[in-house]
Amino acid sequence: MLTRIDHIGIACSDLTEKIAFYESAFGLTVVSREVNDAQGVREAMLRVADAPAGPSYIQLLEPLGPDTPVGKFLARRGEGVHHVGYGVADITQALAAIGAKGITLLDSRPRHGSMGASIAFLHPRDVGGVLTELVQASEP
Amino acid sequence: MLTRIDHIGIACSDLTEKIAFYESAFGLTVVSREVNDAQGVREAMLRVADAPAGPSYIQLLEPLGPDTPVGKFLARRGEGVHHVGYGVADITQALAAIGAKGITLLDSRPRHGSMGASIAFLHPRDVGGVLTELVQASEP
Repeated sequence: MLTRIDHIGIACSDLTEKIAFYESAFGLTVVSREVNDAQGVREAMLRVADAPAGPSYIQLLEPLGPDTPVGKFLARRGEGVHHVGYGVADITQALAAIGAKGITLLDSRPRHGSMGASIAFLHPRDVGGVLTELVQASEP
Repeated sequence: MLTRIDHIGIACSDLTEKIAFYESAFGLTVVSREVNDAQGVREAMLRVADAPAGPSYIQLLEPLGPDTPVGKFLARRGEGVHHVGYGVADITQALAAIGAKGITLLDSRPRHGSMGASIAFLHPRDVGGVLTELVQASEP
């Protein structure tokens, strides 16, 4: 069902500074920047690797305000890994299969994610404390 | 410098139960189990994807006791993402380059990791709160 590790979502308090860090320390480059008002984040995708099943990214997330999910995460836990995104070939099919296992879907239907992808989150309570995202990348 | 997301290290309190969960929920399979006394963990590697630069895994980690690093992590934060491992082609060269940027190396020289890999950890304080591991996979 999972085709790859699509991205690691990392919460940070200063996106510009953190992009500069990842570029300098690890030689990564930004391939996309977006503001996602629905999720309350300003974000950047840095490509780690290309692969037949699709690229893998580090996704840096800066909250648009303290009352957003990522803003509350930062206040509670500080900077660090916020979620993990896995690639799937067919997100509607994957959600149906995972929901049938009794795992709580935070999104019962896919919504718009980074770079035109269709995404959905699973409740961390049902996935061993890991906020887990499914990602069906947009057609190239 | 980074060739792939090698693995997501996930801390759990019951390895057997968590393996069964990831197998059932996401259709993953265990490709390796090890006890690493030096790191104080019992672990399993579940393959997510194969790629030219090497496979990507979920690494499930159960502490051997409460006084181990993963045991303390569980007591402090509960189950969840413990660290992120990135593939590198030459770990000695990568450590030298990263150390030269002023990032604190928890391992100044590579040591033995899962599945015969050479690994080294970077201090999360210097990597935006993310415990970061470099992984040079063993030759096939």
